Amino acid sequence: MDYNRIYNFSAGPAMMPTPVLEEIASEVLNYRGCGMSVMEMSHRSEVFQTIMDEAEADLRELMDIPDNYKVLFIQGGGTLQFAMVPMNLMKNGVADYIITGAWSEKAYLEAKKYGKVNVIATSKDKNYTYIPDCSNLPVDPNADYVYICENETIHGTTFKKLPNTKGKILVTDQSSMFLSKPCNVSDYGLIFAGVQKNVGPAGMAIVIIREDLIREDLDEKVPTYLRYDIHAKSGSLYNTPNCWSIYACGKVFKYLKNIGGLSAMQKINEEKAAILYNFLDKSKMFHGTVEKEYRSLMNVTFVTGNKELDEKVVAAAKAAGFDNLKGHRSVGGLRASIYNAMPKEGVEALVAFLEKFENEYKA
Amino acid sequence: MDYNRIYNFSAGPAMMPTPVLEEIASEVLNYRGCGMSVMEMSHRSEVFQTIMDEAEADLRELMDIPDNYKVLFIQGGGTLQFAMVPMNLMKNGVADYIITGAWSEKAYLEAKKYGKVNVIATSKDKNYTYIPDCSNLPVDPNADYVYICENETIHGTTFKKLPNTKGKILVTDQSSMFLSKPCNVSDYGLIFAGVQKNVGPAGMAIVIIREDLIREDLDEKVPTYLRYDIHAKSGSLYNTPNCWSIYACGKVFKYLKNIGGLSAMQKINEEKAAILYNFLDKSKMFHGTVEKEYRSLMNVTFVTGNKELDEKVVAAAKAAGFDNLKGHRSVGGLRASIYNAMPKEGVEALVAFLEKFENEYKA
Repeated sequence: MDYNRIYNFSAGPAMMPTPVLEEIASEVLNYRGCGMSVMEMSHRSEVFQTIMDEAEADLRELMDIPDNYKVLFIQGGGTLQFAMVPMNLMKNGVADYIITGAWSEKAYLEAKKYGKVNVIATSKDKNYTYIPDCSNLPVDPNADYVYICENETIHGTTFKKLPNTKGKILVTDQSSMFLSKPCNVSDYGLIFAGVQKNVGPAGMAIVIIREDLIREDLDEKVPTYLRYDIHAKSGSLYNTPNCWSIYACGKVFKYLKNIGGLSAMQKINEEKAAILYNFLDKSKMFHGTVEKEYRSLMNVTFVTGNKELDEKVVAAAKAAGFDNLKGHRSVGGLRASIYNAMPKEGVEALVAFLEKFENEYKA
Repeated sequence: MDYNRIYNFSAGPAMMPTPVLEEIASEVLNYRGCGMSVMEMSHRSEVFQTIMDEAEADLRELMDIPDNYKVLFIQGGGTLQFAMVPMNLMKNGVADYIITGAWSEKAYLEAKKYGKVNVIATSKDKNYTYIPDCSNLPVDPNADYVYICENETIHGTTFKKLPNTKGKILVTDQSSMFLSKPCNVSDYGLIFAGVQKNVGPAGMAIVIIREDLIREDLDEKVPTYLRYDIHAKSGSLYNTPNCWSIYACGKVFKYLKNIGGLSAMQKINEEKAAILYNFLDKSKMFHGTVEKEYRSLMNVTFVTGNKELDEKVVAAAKAAGFDNLKGHRSVGGLRASIYNAMPKEGVEALVAFLEKFENEYKA
């Protein structure tokens, strides 16, 4: 069926797979004969517990999450994780941050409230257009963890190789790349992702944490809701969770399993990104802003070099049905976020539009 | 249309109005021709800002909220508010709590982390089956606020008259009674409510706070997400909010306006509660657990006096299509939560069922 849906290049919240939305629409008034909407179910009911258990099991299967990692569903998005990570993981009161853009910087500023935080690498010198060499960093011997934002949504960079943490735990913010490709979970102590970019409805972060990092001996002034041990012990049901987001994300997990899992997803994402980057590399009008080897698969940032022209392209694109192409206000230019749910046809159509725009502009 | 929907007496998440769910279902794949689901929209887009602005305007109209109060949409439910209230409002480091059940006790235990907290009244002596006399309490001259849970979901009690705070600010948790009747906002310094009981999908609290109570001079260790000033300054868009919940709650606000506002809602709620309480008062098998003058309009708690029989009733009720009648595990017995969206027919049907059960049991 045709729902007149547009290609939405938003950095998040962003597109979800149409078949997932169709299923959701059909269940809004009565979820599988239980006589209730998922929005109306007690979070302590059997029917909801099954939804939650299946979501977790499917995510564990997709990412091949080892048994000694907990999966937590927590409200407050990535922003609350910026505080929870240091409040829960700082035992020595020291952490090392690698700053590669606006989101890792925000996380760093928040962490500074709770201990000594070292910036052990940054790409600020070139406006965050690359990922610094992280093979031999001055890791603090007392650091409780090393922190990265693995894909910087605003700047369009991504880590192709994880930093050498010299034995320290690696904490990663995967919000804008979560489930975009296979992930070796045991490389990390903690992975978190706000779900609203690459999975489902906003208002939740998924936290994957190695069990031995969950502490009970925290400063008693840490708010109860901000303690990983509380969420872990209660199976993410210490209080009412964002049930709707768990439900919708669960459907996306099943969808990803059905298309062949994260390897299949990666292949599609690489094809999509190649179409767009190849065009940018040969275009005379548009060019990518990031050094080639650090280009994100998910957030493609580009400019014409002329601010007014950038704005014209964005407006013309919107009129042609390609929404949310404006670059983040802190960077300018254009950005196409081509998350999992953006179909290849959407990227092809965007390139065709940009090509036509370029040709007509020259003429 | 008949969707085979059941009468769901859950304490929360709970029923939503069927017409609201019908509208939502029709918009899942394409919200009013914009080509996107609300789940997919950038929270910084015009179309979402309009949804949010309308939700706030409708809530302001429903509750007649004065201009010097801010309305905030914050993730984390009531539980996060238990921490945010003391962290933001304690200037002198002192607060007075009135404990009338499990929820005010939880709030009190959380507040104790952040300052000196006095219990100035409690009904614990009679298992929280009444509301203490609050006309002349030993309010601490240094108290930054007096705190109540205005309707205790678990115990089924409600404040019919607000406490005399002797000039101190009153903070109220209205989660299980929000929008159930008119509310004189200026009686309070801060009102909060988790939306999942009487409004919409879980994963959000609405906070209504008098502007002069929003402080910027907080302890720098207060997590950014937990600062009211941050949410107020950004119009609840400091980070991506629970967009879906804002959208669905907004539809419920419009629904309430259409049926005549909170006075009309109160009349219906009083009729519904009377049907159930009148039955309990004349039944030989079932009796209410709360002293009459403090009975909640929303959460009706009752017992047979026999634990096994209670369980039989709950099971038979479920089989007959009345779900979630089991009392909270800390109280036992039965509880019928009859929030705004529970139709009068649902309460009548429940009473007919209980009457029949009683008659058959005697026979």
